[in-house]
Amino acid sequence: MSAALLNRLKPAVSSAIRLWNCKAAVIDHRGPAASVRLYSGLMEPGAPLFRQLFESESSTYTYLLADTDTREAVLIDPVLETVDRDLQLINQLGLKLIVAVNTHCHADHITGTGLLKKKVFGLKSGISKHSGATADILLSEGDRITFGKHCLTVRETPGHTDGCLTYVTGDQRMAFTGDAILIRGCGRTDFQQGCPKRLYESIHKKIFTLPAHCFIYPAHDYKGQTVSTVDEEKKFNPRLTKTLDEFVNIMNNLNLPKPKKIDISVPANLVCGLHDI
Amino acid sequence: MSAALLNRLKPAVSSAIRLWNCKAAVIDHRGPAASVRLYSGLMEPGAPLFRQLFESESSTYTYLLADTDTREAVLIDPVLETVDRDLQLINQLGLKLIVAVNTHCHADHITGTGLLKKKVFGLKSGISKHSGATADILLSEGDRITFGKHCLTVRETPGHTDGCLTYVTGDQRMAFTGDAILIRGCGRTDFQQGCPKRLYESIHKKIFTLPAHCFIYPAHDYKGQTVSTVDEEKKFNPRLTKTLDEFVNIMNNLNLPKPKKIDISVPANLVCGLHDI
Repeated sequence: MSAALLNRLKPAVSSAIRLWNCKAAVIDHRGPAASVRLYSGLMEPGAPLFRQLFESESSTYTYLLADTDTREAVLIDPVLETVDRDLQLINQLGLKLIVAVNTHCHADHITGTGLLKKKVFGLKSGISKHSGATADILLSEGDRITFGKHCLTVRETPGHTDGCLTYVTGDQRMAFTGDAILIRGCGRTDFQQGCPKRLYESIHKKIFTLPAHCFIYPAHDYKGQTVSTVDEEKKFNPRLTKTLDEFVNIMNNLNLPKPKKIDISVPANLVCGLHDI
Repeated sequence: MSAALLNRLKPAVSSAIRLWNCKAAVIDHRGPAASVRLYSGLMEPGAPLFRQLFESESSTYTYLLADTDTREAVLIDPVLETVDRDLQLINQLGLKLIVAVNTHCHADHITGTGLLKKKVFGLKSGISKHSGATADILLSEGDRITFGKHCLTVRETPGHTDGCLTYVTGDQRMAFTGDAILIRGCGRTDFQQGCPKRLYESIHKKIFTLPAHCFIYPAHDYKGQTVSTVDEEKKFNPRLTKTLDEFVNIMNNLNLPKPKKIDISVPANLVCGLHDI
């Protein structure tokens, strides 16, 4: 074999040695990817801008949705302590926050909607008409919150509280379920008009009837999970896969401690987060 | 006006009253959405399944990517303490975990790759060949990790450590940047071969050259942020928008405390997370 031929083969031999312990199907060393197939993220042209934000003390998720053309934006479940973080992001992204809604009257944290209204001129707050809370917009079944060419449709999902709402994007690809269904869990039903039977029926009639691939974005997660789907929760939710009777029994025997901030949060959230602050 | 007519008008009048304080453009009460436009999420046919997972003690993000046809899956930056959570999800989703990689030899937590290898037959671990750590696959610039029809391409982004890698999806829509760039921040450079100049150059040459809309998914976030984009970080990152000299000066004067777990984590991570456990 000539020296020239050896030199030509050298890179291939070296590559083969490096692949000794690797499955060729798993890794290859061909350099930059040649062919590219676009799988669409949520930033594809015309899709709404979407951000999931987390408040660690109460383990609450806040969701930002916006129209990338009109720049109109909606916040779901903002938290008082993270209002400045959220507004900084909204400003940096060049968005105009027009609506801030809650999925329900929270017991574990104070909503950021009141403070946001003080900081953003013209901002409207929204909450269920059954929540007992004040807001600019009192929402009920079938209402739609529009931002640019997008919208969120309101589904009433009581059971954790009387005034729990699930917000569903117009194309039914994303559902913001509040404390109705959580990832592999659900909201408790032992205070604030909680009723296991109502919750079970809400989830089965209003959430499990959404398309199987619809993403579920809850108001909380305590295990570092960020998203689920209707299909997954129908199959794997340890509570909601049970019969109604079994579910009621589980929920009535959770023996959970009272939420630390309930005596501060609920009165404040009944007035848009502004009680005594 | 007849009583019959009044009754017919009643719902419309009631709706008008409810809308008193609302902008009609923001909310309407027309009932279920009639027209639906699909904006594609990451679960559209052919797209990889994608999950972002969080470990709260070290504020680490673990990422799961999978091909929905072949079910082959890849984990990026698994954490020892959350291995069982991640495996449960992988099993529920019917996935076959074939590779678990680290973006670098972490100082703040112990990697889950070693434990995963014990629990998942045939699983390969991967890390940079410049990390000094052992793994089944030692990765370098341009290598590709394939799972089904998808792949991750390796970009070397040293500076936080010598062996830092950024994994980029084949279509350049997502970049998993480890501790090179964080959301509005970056990895520290005061231990483990840290070098501000190298980090600055890595980010500008290897990450900021990705498409503007490319999502940045970092290894950590401490403020509840989940994702950014190349465009955002180029515009708003308070460190990376500075000149090289200014950046070096900032990084050399952070005076951060030593990571609590560095003396346990680094020796363990040099052997796939299995030292003394």
